[in-house]
Amino acid sequence: MTTKTLTGFHAITSRLRQRPETVHEIYVDAERNDGRVKELKDLAKRLNVRMIPVDMKRLDGMTGGVRHQGVVAQAEPVNMPQFIEDVLEGISEPPLILILDGIQDPHNLGACLRVADGAGAHAVIAPKDRSVGLTTAAIKVASGAAEAIPYIVVTNLARTMRDLKDKGIWLVGADDSAPESIYKAKIDGAVGMVLGAEGEGLRRLTKESCDLLVSIPMMGTVDSLNVSVASGICLYEARRRRFK
Amino acid sequence: MTTKTLTGFHAITSRLRQRPETVHEIYVDAERNDGRVKELKDLAKRLNVRMIPVDMKRLDGMTGGVRHQGVVAQAEPVNMPQFIEDVLEGISEPPLILILDGIQDPHNLGACLRVADGAGAHAVIAPKDRSVGLTTAAIKVASGAAEAIPYIVVTNLARTMRDLKDKGIWLVGADDSAPESIYKAKIDGAVGMVLGAEGEGLRRLTKESCDLLVSIPMMGTVDSLNVSVASGICLYEARRRRFK
Repeated sequence: MTTKTLTGFHAITSRLRQRPETVHEIYVDAERNDGRVKELKDLAKRLNVRMIPVDMKRLDGMTGGVRHQGVVAQAEPVNMPQFIEDVLEGISEPPLILILDGIQDPHNLGACLRVADGAGAHAVIAPKDRSVGLTTAAIKVASGAAEAIPYIVVTNLARTMRDLKDKGIWLVGADDSAPESIYKAKIDGAVGMVLGAEGEGLRRLTKESCDLLVSIPMMGTVDSLNVSVASGICLYEARRRRFK
Repeated sequence: MTTKTLTGFHAITSRLRQRPETVHEIYVDAERNDGRVKELKDLAKRLNVRMIPVDMKRLDGMTGGVRHQGVVAQAEPVNMPQFIEDVLEGISEPPLILILDGIQDPHNLGACLRVADGAGAHAVIAPKDRSVGLTTAAIKVASGAAEAIPYIVVTNLARTMRDLKDKGIWLVGADDSAPESIYKAKIDGAVGMVLGAEGEGLRRLTKESCDLLVSIPMMGTVDSLNVSVASGICLYEARRRRFK
């Protein structure tokens, strides 16, 4: 049986709340006895999940060096949709999608998943080439979002973007040099926000596959934002338009 | 003479553009010869700043383990305002301030400075206790913002908040449990956005010092956002209200 290692309070608490039956056991630093550990212990006890005190060395060994805050869980992998079609079928509002072109840093991917989930996006899509996978580090930073929002890896991003357009999804690329501000742009309906890696931005073909390019106004000295921060600003602006 | 170590392309390019006369010299990994290094070389040459090829070991030694992407500069420290009063005197629009309560992680501080600068905030304020300083890591992550936006450390945050209120600045705290959404809140004029550390949130006294508490709507499973992402969403929402 395959198991998956979850690390940190956020990710483990989130899984316990969503799918407690999939958590085999939780290992906790035997030296820790603070409020956060107690809270987790109470939750685990209520849900009938075993919590095992171990030493830090054992925890370090389980995570292969990823920071774990003294708590690690072994759990069943959760089945997430693999295809965007399956995601789109199951939703009842106009789709809100995040497309990431070439994000290589697992922390950035995790942070993007977290804010995409926060903004109520329905999926995150990335090309197989030049993208990082759902590593333990990415899952940890995602704080539970890696198991809540589908991360869909596609072999041909341009083709996927074409398919999304055919389904009536408006693709809006974030590009530092675009003259149109996101705050003026049409992003009210079904929308896919497309963001590239820091420094490099969107690849040419990805850019050409967008319906519209927009920029986030840079009011100071820095000329770009971290990709997860930019994703948050774009997705929440799209979400804001939907609030009554 | 005191010098300051700048690391990474963003921070060094930003300083070269703003204050080239303050950069003594740039050390670059002798093995690197890609487009990004060439661009930096061209810029440095145009500005008459010496660029010295060295080996990676030497670069590592200069930064004490902070990631530097193969480029390190020695520069004069730039004098930034130390007091919020000095900042407020020099600005011509209603103040937009970020107040960080208890951010201990240098990466988070750097990321907050970067997005605060991006959103055109005028200063970032933090209490001396329980806050990280402008470490090399924070400066690197800030991508130039650490030298563009004043980071003002105060001994008594509650008193500073009282002073800001007396100056007509509306203090809005971000609090996960606040019933009012930031998208409905009054944040149109002079405003200070107050954010706490992840997990802990705002301290009681800080919360009580706010005029208003708001939350960022969490539409998915995660129950909070990274503090730099949340800062970006709050500051850009305040900035958006000012756009015509």
